[in-house]
Parts: sequence; structure tokens; C-alpha cells
Amino acid sequence: MDFDFDATTEKLRSGLLDFMDSHVYPAERRMEGESSGGFATPQLMEELKAAARERGLWNFFCELPNLSYAPLAEITGWSPKLAPEAVNCSAPDTGNMEVLAQFGTLEQKEQWLRPLLDGEIRSAFCMTEPEVASSDATNIETRIRKEGDEYVVDGRKWYASGAMNPNAKIFIVMGKTDPDGPRHRQQSMILVPRDTPGVEIVRPMQVFGYRDEWHGGHAEVRFHGVRVPASNLIAGEGEGFAISQARLGPGRIHHCMRLIGMAERGLALMCERTESRVAFGRPLAEQGVIREWIAESRVRIEQARLLVLKTAWLMDTVGNKGAHTEIQSIKIAVPSMTEWVLDKAIQAHGGGGVSQDFPLAELWAGARTLRLADGPDEVHRRSLAKAELKRQAAQRAGRVDAGE
Amino acid sequence: MDFDFDATTEKLRSGLLDFMDSHVYPAERRMEGESSGGFATPQLMEELKAAARERGLWNFFCELPNLSYAPLAEITGWSPKLAPEAVNCSAPDTGNMEVLAQFGTLEQKEQWLRPLLDGEIRSAFCMTEPEVASSDATNIETRIRKEGDEYVVDGRKWYASGAMNPNAKIFIVMGKTDPDGPRHRQQSMILVPRDTPGVEIVRPMQVFGYRDEWHGGHAEVRFHGVRVPASNLIAGEGEGFAISQARLGPGRIHHCMRLIGMAERGLALMCERTESRVAFGRPLAEQGVIREWIAESRVRIEQARLLVLKTAWLMDTVGNKGAHTEIQSIKIAVPSMTEWVLDKAIQAHGGGGVSQDFPLAELWAGARTLRLADGPDEVHRRSLAKAELKRQAAQRAGRVDAGE
Amino acid sequence: MDFDFDATTEKLRSGLLDFMDSHVYPAERRMEGESSGGFATPQLMEELKAAARERGLWNFFCELPNLSYAPLAEITGWSPKLAPEAVNCSAPDTGNMEVLAQFGTLEQKEQWLRPLLDGEIRSAFCMTEPEVASSDATNIETRIRKEGDEYVVDGRKWYASGAMNPNAKIFIVMGKTDPDGPRHRQQSMILVPRDTPGVEIVRPMQVFGYRDEWHGGHAEVRFHGVRVPASNLIAGEGEGFAISQARLGPGRIHHCMRLIGMAERGLALMCERTESRVAFGRPLAEQGVIREWIAESRVRIEQARLLVLKTAWLMDTVGNKGAHTEIQSIKIAVPSMTEWVLDKAIQAHGGGGVSQDFPLAELWAGARTLRLADGPDEVHRRSLAKAELKRQAAQRAGRVDAGE
Amino acid sequence: MDFDFDATTEKLRSGLLDFMDSHVYPAERRMEGESSGGFATPQLMEELKAAARERGLWNFFCELPNLSYAPLAEITGWSPKLAPEAVNCSAPDTGNMEVLAQFGTLEQKEQWLRPLLDGEIRSAFCMTEPEVASSDATNIETRIRKEGDEYVVDGRKWYASGAMNPNAKIFIVMGKTDPDGPRHRQQSMILVPRDTPGVEIVRPMQVFGYRDEWHGGHAEVRFHGVRVPASNLIAGEGEGFAISQARLGPGRIHHCMRLIGMAERGLALMCERTESRVAFGRPLAEQGVIREWIAESRVRIEQARLLVLKTAWLMDTVGNKGAHTEIQSIKIAVPSMTEWVLDKAIQAHGGGGVSQDFPLAELWAGARTLRLADGPDEVHRRSLAKAELKRQAAQRAGRVDAGE
Repeated sequence: MDFDFDATTEKLRSGLLDFMDSHVYPAERRMEGESSGGFATPQLMEELKAAARERGLWNFFCELPNLSYAPLAEITGWSPKLAPEAVNCSAPDTGNMEVLAQFGTLEQKEQWLRPLLDGEIRSAFCMTEPEVASSDATNIETRIRKEGDEYVVDGRKWYASGAMNPNAKIFIVMGKTDPDGPRHRQQSMILVPRDTPGVEIVRPMQVFGYRDEWHGGHAEVRFHGVRVPASNLIAGEGEGFAISQARLGPGRIHHCMRLIGMAERGLALMCERTESRVAFGRPLAEQGVIREWIAESRVRIEQARLLVLKTAWLMDTVGNKGAHTEIQSIKIAVPSMTEWVLDKAIQAHGGGGVSQDFPLAELWAGARTLRLADGPDEVHRRSLAKAELKRQAAQRAGRVDAGE
Repeated sequence: MDFDFDATTEKLRSGLLDFMDSHVYPAERRMEGESSGGFATPQLMEELKAAARERGLWNFFCELPNLSYAPLAEITGWSPKLAPEAVNCSAPDTGNMEVLAQFGTLEQKEQWLRPLLDGEIRSAFCMTEPEVASSDATNIETRIRKEGDEYVVDGRKWYASGAMNPNAKIFIVMGKTDPDGPRHRQQSMILVPRDTPGVEIVRPMQVFGYRDEWHGGHAEVRFHGVRVPASNLIAGEGEGFAISQARLGPGRIHHCMRLIGMAERGLALMCERTESRVAFGRPLAEQGVIREWIAESRVRIEQARLLVLKTAWLMDTVGNKGAHTEIQSIKIAVPSMTEWVLDKAIQAHGGGGVSQDFPLAELWAGARTLRLADGPDEVHRRSLAKAELKRQAAQRAGRVDAGE
Repeated sequence: MDFDFDATTEKLRSGLLDFMDSHVYPAERRMEGESSGGFATPQLMEELKAAARERGLWNFFCELPNLSYAPLAEITGWSPKLAPEAVNCSAPDTGNMEVLAQFGTLEQKEQWLRPLLDGEIRSAFCMTEPEVASSDATNIETRIRKEGDEYVVDGRKWYASGAMNPNAKIFIVMGKTDPDGPRHRQQSMILVPRDTPGVEIVRPMQVFGYRDEWHGGHAEVRFHGVRVPASNLIAGEGEGFAISQARLGPGRIHHCMRLIGMAERGLALMCERTESRVAFGRPLAEQGVIREWIAESRVRIEQARLLVLKTAWLMDTVGNKGAHTEIQSIKIAVPSMTEWVLDKAIQAHGGGGVSQDFPLAELWAGARTLRLADGPDEVHRRSLAKAELKRQAAQRAGRVDAGE
Repeated sequence: MDFDFDATTEKLRSGLLDFMDSHVYPAERRMEGESSGGFATPQLMEELKAAARERGLWNFFCELPNLSYAPLAEITGWSPKLAPEAVNCSAPDTGNMEVLAQFGTLEQKEQWLRPLLDGEIRSAFCMTEPEVASSDATNIETRIRKEGDEYVVDGRKWYASGAMNPNAKIFIVMGKTDPDGPRHRQQSMILVPRDTPGVEIVRPMQVFGYRDEWHGGHAEVRFHGVRVPASNLIAGEGEGFAISQARLGPGRIHHCMRLIGMAERGLALMCERTESRVAFGRPLAEQGVIREWIAESRVRIEQARLLVLKTAWLMDTVGNKGAHTEIQSIKIAVPSMTEWVLDKAIQAHGGGGVSQDFPLAELWAGARTLRLADGPDEVHRRSLAKAELKRQAAQRAGRVDAGE
């Protein structure tokens, strides 16, 4: 057992930290003045991307083992509006690229994966539906029907992150090709180019009042008899559920890695603020309650980070399936930890904490949302408990067999 | 001891509940389509106000004892964007009207209180400052200097709720007339008409991404050598702290009354939603975790409501000062209770919970903000604990004296 | 609505507070030296009982409305080992007396109720079984079989509170007379005198290491073919579940009343201790974290007390059935509130807090146990949520009918 | 970074797990019948010790790096009454042995360390005092005065764990040799043999009703003018605080390692119980609330374990001082985590949970006590926050220096 990062990772960390100081934080400050100009990628971002790529800070997510990527993603979490996209490691593109890399045909890869890897276009993932509890995949109502050598997609999706950005050229859509099939073979995934007739971008969804323009927003999208070539199907009919599982595992850990950084940002701001503000004769930082928050924040962050790192290590060594319980564990533990730290940081900032003058409220909204995105905590706990009960029963049985 | 409302209160409750059903909830649905048109009072609101006044649902806050007002304010809390203003009981106007009624000169009352009571104009309260921890009033940096028969106001305020609305014609501004005076005699309050030269409405402040257009937003306001007649001072130099205390007590309980209604709305939505959504073969409402939330919500709301009602009763019977500890208690207990209930309701709604399609996320932002507005919880707990320690010490001393 | 106690209640409160100061707290201090002498009622207690009865402080539970009894029971909760029994208001006797008063025959009353009301004997209630989840009454395995003009009782019970005391002369036993009957008609209750052949007092059960000698302990009791006359049955075959419900409602509120007093005792001790202990240059009471605890304790106690009082008022005005939801609510809210306050008081006392030198640890064990005694919180929350969902659905339906 | 244990550790784990199954759990069952015979070491324990030593399961704490010892100590935590002492790794002996090994003279080592390492005698550590907040070492009131070639010890200590056992032959006592010296140079430590005249074992202290007979209890000890040779002083006058710090670091991590095992035991029992108990038609394990507990327990245990392991690694690689923040972190995080898991396990067991029939209540009392033993959480959080604020300030300064 060893808790040091290897030399390669340390070098990348150092380079990325420099980049954050030299480019990202200054860009944050510029950004305030600069209108987001709607949902399109702002010029500022293109500059950041160019600078990052030049320094070799690019596509970590697919070029490094998870255990190396984790601390880098954490660093980008300090500035989640800018840094992940600057190094071409932002959701939902990373997950979509992984789907294409793992399940796509050569043609699909050439057409969509290459420009995504080059940061030329963006993409969206259309899974959640407004009408049903989508955390249970059997509830999905979007239909994908074969007609000749085409598929016809009908349905309604929302919270398609990034889809408001006109440069999100390709949508991966989950729907049912076989509604009467076995529970986890009913679903398929299909590539729908943005400009296909029948694709309607209905409206931007909000997240606690935010529209996340810099991320390309979160769209409600309707598919009205949208026709795409049969070759746009990914992997095969009935593979949708399996692909979504393959996609969500890494997606979840990426979120969790960044959430660690978001929590660290909150803690750093809380420390800075409470040392400079005075109330009732002493800096806030010398008051007992604030110290409790700071200590608790440090203790919670450390524990969560270690669990994320162990999960990354497991994914690298025994595979995503072997790390299933740990992926669920971090999905349960990390968003609420980050939410807690940010809540305290907000409280320490008074009115400023809920305002647009500090990143705290917006970071909080992101963390809070991740308690329900990609499956609410409760679904993950339910599933994790079933696995634990099974494991414990097996252990008890083992003991009995061993003659105890 | 008796837990029934009196007949007058019950009648008003019944009338107000009818009005909510016949006017407010329908208006909520119309509102979605209707742009807020910036921060100005929308036409919809004027219609609601007329309808409410016609039914005698008007100015409860100043015409009824607190114990009668409490359940009415609670009902308006179900729709805090529309209902409180519709019955002319919305913050910050209520608090400002109370200041004018209690401390204003006849002239000040005629000029500002009358049109406020008639719902013709609105008002703002400029207390919090961005540069200092304003929960400690000795930190206030805004200056109010006497020059001849005028006062000159210089300073920077933010989160002046309602002040973005052009119809907020009058601002009550807290500042220091005597920065070297005794701790609680340094501050004064003064009336500054909106259109006085030197008043700059800098920008709307956000609250978790919301701009609260329907409330008239929350403004950053700068006062650049703003001159008003000396007769605009309220009560007298050095009275500012005392007025703010007198104002904040009722203001806090009004917020808490409405927060009970906000929590009830959240619980109602949670019940409705979880009965209609099915996951893993059963409605959410039949799943154990959801039931825990529903039961806990009911239990927490009931306790908080009773404490609010008892506080109202104390204010009516022994006065605001005698109810000081209870006012602090509800300020500590109620926002976090409501936040908790709304958090669970949001979680039960999945993506919808954080969206603009349900009132939950916006209600949550309001509740969360009240954990720090009007003094953060921590300041109230600190003060309440000091009083409790003193009370307990007196009790111990009493026992010792009694020869125990 | 009115939050004052009536004059009678205030007078009794005053008398009881005097008695606590003059008799109970001094007895607490004597008690430390005096061995409990096993589970028998100690002489000290008999003295207290005589003194209390002389002052008219006796049998409040059956002579006063709940709303008057509540504040008195709270006072006895400050010293739960001594005060409740001193005024003949201690569990499980109160509940057993109520069962006899409400459902007993004249003969049963004469034989058992009269000496209980006079404090001459004690009693036990045998409900919980070690082998099954007894919170679901259909799980009960004890059998009560009719044979001629006798009933034969077979079964195993535990946590029969008070039953270790040899003066607990009568046991009320819950068992099944009709295991195949309708769910809530299978159970009956029967009177089993302690000295009946076949009654085996197996052992004292512990509660976090405590044996509660002063309460008469908590016994495991086995019934081996125990024969009693048929006239010992209470009310009738199949009435057991209904009686248990009738009994548990008041029993639960009595516990909750006392728990308020236990929490107040904890808070009083926390305040006293933290003012006298100095660490890092200041009394603990001046440190922020401690103040948070004190303030939170006060706020939580007040809310819980009001809910208990409202429940008592409902029981007096609309009956125990009408107060069902509120009884569940306090059962859920109060033990965990008291546990929280005592936990903080313990922490503020350091090693002393967990020791026998302060009542805190033992009070804590009592509060903790009430989170699972008389049905675990989870069962009450489940049931309360079902009622809430039903209520909300009815309300929605009402609105729809009203044409909304 | 690597999360696998090395081969040596894995082999020891396997051997110890076998020993738990073959010897410790069977001994637990025997123990129930066997009286503890007061505080003396029971025969059962001597048998376990012999068996363990024969298998090479002995003195791990001083023969292995922390990172190897951690998983072994965790395993012993499953049965903390028996397993730690069986392998001669139980508190307070381990800490005392470390003090002697690190600071003792050759003579002191020969006389006391050797028999302790051989498990022939036991020892006690007398630090905490009833009269003062001992977490602040400057409060210590015990005096150690030099008189000729002797030291005279006067003072009162309590919670001297193990000291009730007559075989606890040697006490390490903390007291002040120089009450007016610099804050952390006032204290010294001295060896006081149990049978020295003037040593009075006053009484056993309780922990929530438990007397911990198997551990040798927790004694109140008074030192009445106790004279020992000057050579009994450890290290030198004024070294007491430094020694205590050196001792407590490892002591704290050992406790935390075992607490992980205690939590695992609680989770295992919770799983086993809830699968076998049925309420309302389904096993408890299929009910949502219980599943939440199981999942949360797993997630919390994993995080805490990783933080303990990282702390152990840091102690091995950068030393105890370098691991100071992490040692504090686990002291804060682990006892409350274990307390939480055990609380849920207790709740799932109903009455059995608080009884002597399951180890849960006693394990709970141990975990709860560790929230205040060796310094209450609040003291550690206060200190950790100060370090964090300093670290963050340095980081900000670094950035400013770097020209940002």
C-alpha cells in the first residue's frame, strides 16, 4: 500500500496547477465582465483550449489511467465552468467519447469521435425524461423504431446537458427498440445529429436559477419522428442499458473527482474570508463554530478523496465492474460532502455567499444536482445495500461451511 | 392553554384559503407564460391586489395581533412570489411600514406610510453592506453627516430587497451619524427617496441564480453624497440600532410564518409526486425512505409552527422584548427546517426538483437565504446561548438562596 | 389560542417544584451512598411516597387532564429514578392502572387497581418477545389457550420493566388466543399474578450496562403452562390489540413528557458545568461550539415541549384516537431530541459525562432506549407517513371537486 | 499509489482471521456463562494469550510498521474485549510499552517493559483528573515534588483504564514538577508501582453502566504523598507533555484501527439480524430505511478505513509529527462513524440491541467514549482548524509571491 502519486502524475499535476494560476483563474476574473453570449462557446474558452493543448494538457480522461486522471480532474474541479472544457475533459463529452471509442463503428468514430477529441465540436447525451422516474431504465418512454434502413426516434428528453450550445453537433439518444423485451434488453442508443429534421430544442432547463450558459445549458429536446440511418445505432439493438452502465461508471467517478476540487475551492474561500472578516471583536476564523466547519471540511474532504482514489485504482486494476460497489459509494458520498462544505462556506460569506460575486452558490447548485443526477442517492444506496447483504450472507455461509 | 384559533382568525383563514384557490394558484400558472418584464410590478399583481383588497384581505400585518396574523402569513407562504404582496403584507414593506408607524413623524407618515398602506408604492431597506460583517452593527460603514439642515449619505449597500423595482419610491437607510459614540448609539436611520441625486442603483444581486424579479429583486445601491432634508431622519440621531431591533423582531417572525407555509407546500408537492411516480415496481410513496421523509417533514413542521405561534402569542402578551429569546429561536429553527423539507421534496422530484417547472428550487433558495439574512443563525445562537446561561445561573442562584 | 397554564396546574407545578427541591434532589444525593439492595423498592422511596402523598402530589396521571399532567410529568422527568414513582406516576404502573380502569371488571379493579392506586404494590406489562419483531403485533408468539374455566399461558417475554421487583405482584400479559383470526383480533390480554406456578423470572435485562434496579429492572420472564382463572382475561378474547393501542397512546405521551424534563436537566447541567470549567484560557461556556449546543438545546426542547402539550390538549379535547398522528409525532421527535441534548451535555462533561457521578449517561440510556421501546421510530414514521399521504390525497381531491 | 497490502501483512491477516474464528469467537460464547470474577484477568484470557503467542500473533504493535498493524488491529476490533489483549496489543499497555521503549532507561525497560512485552503484567496510565478539563494539559493539578533522591506524588486521577486489575503492576503518572514553568514544560511523567504506599485505588468508574471488568476497569486512583525513587522519572523533568504527545499519537490510531473493526462487526450483525426478522410481511432487510443504513454504513466505514490507513502510512514514512493533522482527522472522524453504525445496528435489533445478549450496546459505549477520551473531538477540531488556516494562508501567500 502506497499513497504517493507516481512521477508522471505529479508532473502533470504540477503543469496543470501552473495552468490554473496562469490562465484559468485570470479567465474567471475576465469572465465576469464578459457576457456569456447565450449558450455558444465563448471566445475565451477557445483561447483557453488552445493554451492548454499547447502545453499537453488535453484529453487526460482517455489517455491516462483513472488513478492518474483523478488528481487532475480534481484540480479542474476548482473552476468547473472553465477548466474541464479547457483540457477537453468536460461532461458530457467525455462520456460520449468513451461510448464512441468503446462501442462505435469505425465510421462513427471518424465522423464524431475525432472532432470531439480535437475539441472542434461538442455533444449531448439524451437520457432523462420528464414524464417518468428515469433512474429505473425500464421506465424510458422514448421509442426508436426500425423502418427499412432507418430508425425513427420519438420522445421527449430533458436535462440534455450541453445541448443548448449550437456547436453540440451530435446527440446520443437512449430509447426503446423493444418495449416488451427482457427488462435490460429493451433499450438501445442511437446517434442523432443535431440538425436532423424533427429535432426540436424546446428550452433551456434551469438548475436553481442557473442556466449554465458556459456549459451549453441543459436542454429540453423533443424528437418528432426523427429519421436517421440504421448505421447510426450504437453497438446493436438491446445494448442500450449495457452501454449506459458502461458510460455511467466513469462518468460518475469523473464527477466525483471534480467535486473534490469544488469542495477544496469552497474550503479555501472559507478560510480566506473568515480570516479577513471581523465580527464581535475577532476575525470569524477565531470563532469556535467556524473552526468546527473548517476542521470538519478538511476531514470530510480527505476521506472522500481517498475513496475516489481507491475507486480509480480498482477501475484500473479489476475493471469497472469490479469497482461497481465503490463507484456507487463515491456517488453516494461525494456530492453530499461537497454540498456540506459549500453550504458552510456560503454561510461564512453571508450575503456574498449566495450572490454572483463568489463562485460558491453556483458550485453548490452543481453539487446539489449531482445528488440526483445519474441516479438519485437513494437508488444507489438501495442497490449497494443489496450487494452488501449478499456479500455478508456469503461470508456467514463461508464461516458455517468452515465448521464454525 | 388552548390550541384553537379564535373565530375571527378562522374566518380570515377561510377567506384567504378561498382566495388562494380562486386567484393565487391560477395566477401562478398564468405567470409562467408571462414575462416578469424586468423588476417592475407586473399587471397580474395589480389585479391580485385589487381582488384581495375587495375581499378585505389586506394589511393583516398591522391590523391583527400576531397570533391572528401568523396563520394567515403561513398561508401566503404557499406562494411567496404572489400572495404576500397581493394582500399588502410583503417584505420589506411591512417592516418599513412598521418603522414609519412607530417612529415616523406625522409628515413622514403622510408622505410615505399612507401610499404604502394603500399598496400604491413600494419601499426598500438598506442595511447590509458588502464590505463588512453587517450582522455586527458596529461594522456599518455608511456615513450620515449633518450639514446645515441636511444630512449627507455616503455608502454602499447590497441586498436591498425590492429596490430594483422602479416603484420602490422610498429607501430607509442605516448609517452612522456618530462613529465614535457608544456601540449602539452610533447608528441612525434616514429616509432617502429613490430619485434623490446621488442614489445609484448599481446592479441586481442574485440568490442562487435567481434575481427575484417578482419581488423587485435585490439591489446593490451606492449613495454618493446624497443630500436629504434633516427632517428625513427617523426618530433621532443614535436611534438607528434601536429601530433596527424593533424592526427586525416582527420581520423575523413574518419570515418564519411564511416559511411554515413554504414547507407545507413542499410537503404537499412531495406527497403528490411520490404517489404518481413509479420506480422499481412501486410508487415512490410506498418506499421506506420516502416515507421517512414525509413523516419527518410533518413532525418538523408541526414543531416549528407551534414555536412560531407561541412566539406570536408572547409578542402580543408580553411584547417584542419579552419574546426576544423566542424570536431568536424561530429564526434559528424555522429556515433550516424548511430548507430540509424542501431538499427532500426536490430529491423526490428528480430533475424536476431543481428546475423551473416546480416552485421547489426557488422556494429552497429563499429558505436557505433566510439562514443568513437578518443575521446568520450562528449569531443568533451565540446570543441566545448567552441569555440561556444567564437564566440558568440566576436559577441556580435562586436555589442556593432558597437554602438548597 | 393561549399558551398559559391554568391556575390549578400552576399551583400543582409550584407544589411539585418545591417537593423536588425539598425531597427529591436531596434523596438523589443520599441515594448515591445507599445501595439499591437489589430490585426491591428501597426504604428511601417509601419515604418519598409518603411525603408526596401527604402534600397531595399523587396519581396525577389519572386525576388530571393530560394538559395539566404534562407539565407535572415533565418536572418528574428531572429525576426519573425517583420522582415519578414518588408521586405514583411511574411506568409501567400508570399504563397498567389505565388498562384496569378502562377495561377491568369490578373484581379485577378491587383486587389490583386499588392497591396500585395506593402505591402498595407494583405491576409489570409483558408484551415484547425476544424471538420476533414485536412492533408488528401479529408476530407475537405467546399463546393463551382456554382450557375449561382456565386460561393456560405459554411464552417468553423480555424487557418486562419493573418485573424484577418482588413487589410487582401482577403481570399483564399479551398473547394470542386466536392465532388464525383476523390480524388485529388474534391477541388477548390476561392478568397473571406473579406467584402463579409456572411463572419464571429468568434474569434481569440490561440497558447499556444499566440494570435499572430502582425501577425494578427489566425482566426476562417465561410462562410455562401458567394457569389462571378465565376471569383474569381483560375485556374479552381478541381485544388484546385494541387494549394495547389504548394503553400505548397515553404511555407514549407520559414518556415524552418526562423526556422533556430529562432534556432540561441535561441542559441545566451543561450550563452549570461549562461555566465552571476552564480550558485554553476561557470557561467552556464562552467557547463557540458550546454555545451552539446550548442554543440548539433550548430551541429543540421548546419545540418538542409545545408538540407534547398540543398532543395532550388534543387527547383531552378530541380523544386519543383523534390525537393519533400527534402521539406518533412526539414518539418520533422527543426521544431523539432528548438523546441529542444529553449527548452534548455528556460531551461537555468529559469523562464525568459517561460516569456514575452525573446522571447524564443513565438519562441518555433511557432516552436512547425510548427510540425503540413501544415501537421503534421507524415503525411510527412509516405509519405516520401513510396517514399523511392519505390526508394529502383527500385534500387534493377536495380541491379538484371544488372545481379548481 | 497502490491499495493492496503487502504479502507479509496479508499472511498475518489470514492467520489472525483464522485465530478469531477458531479461538476468539468461541471464547466470546463461553465468556457469557463465565463470570468475569471481578477485575482480575480471567483464566480464559490466559488461554487465549498462550494460543495466540504460539501462532506468532503477538506484539504486532511494536514489531510491525503501522501500515501492517492497522488491518490486524482492525480485526481485533471485532472482539475488543478479548482479541487485543490476546495478542498483547491492548490499551493502555501498548502506549505504556511505547513510552518505556522510547524514553525509558535500561533499568526501567528491564523491570517493566520486558514483562509487559511478555504479557506477564499489565499497566495503567494516569492522566485524566476529575477536577479539571484535562484536555488542556496546563490544567493538571497532580504534583510531583522532588525531595532528596525521591519524588513525592500527590493528586487524584480517574479513568485510569486497566488499573482495577490487580495485575496492573505499574502506573505511569502525569503530574507537574514545575507548575510555574513554560506552558508545556511544567509536566513530568513518573513510574509508580501499584503497591507503593499511598496509592489508593478508590473505586471503579463506569462507562454508561459498564464497568469493563475484562479490561481491568477504569479506576479512580488517589496518590497520597506517594514516594518513589528519583530514578522512576521518565526521560526528565518537564518532558511530560512531550511524552504524552508522543504516546497519544499512536494510541489514537490504534483506537481508530480497532474502531473500524467494531463498526464492521456492527454492520455484520445488522445484516444478519435484518435478514432473519420479519415485520409487516417482509424481512427488515428488504425495507428501504434499513437498506439506507446498510449502504451508509458501508460507505462511511470505507472512507474512515482509508483515512486510517493513509495516516498509518504517513506515520511510517514521514513520522508521527508529519502525520499530526491526519491523526487528528481520524480521531475526529472514526469514533463518531463507528457510533453511527452501531446506533443503527442497535436500532435494527430492537430491545436486543441495548441488551447484554448482543455486543452492540457495549461496543457503542466504547465508541461513544472515544469521542471524548484522549481529548474531546472539539479540542481536536479546534487545533486542526488552526493548522488548516495556517496552511491555507501560506498557500495564498505563495500565490501572491508567484505574482498572481
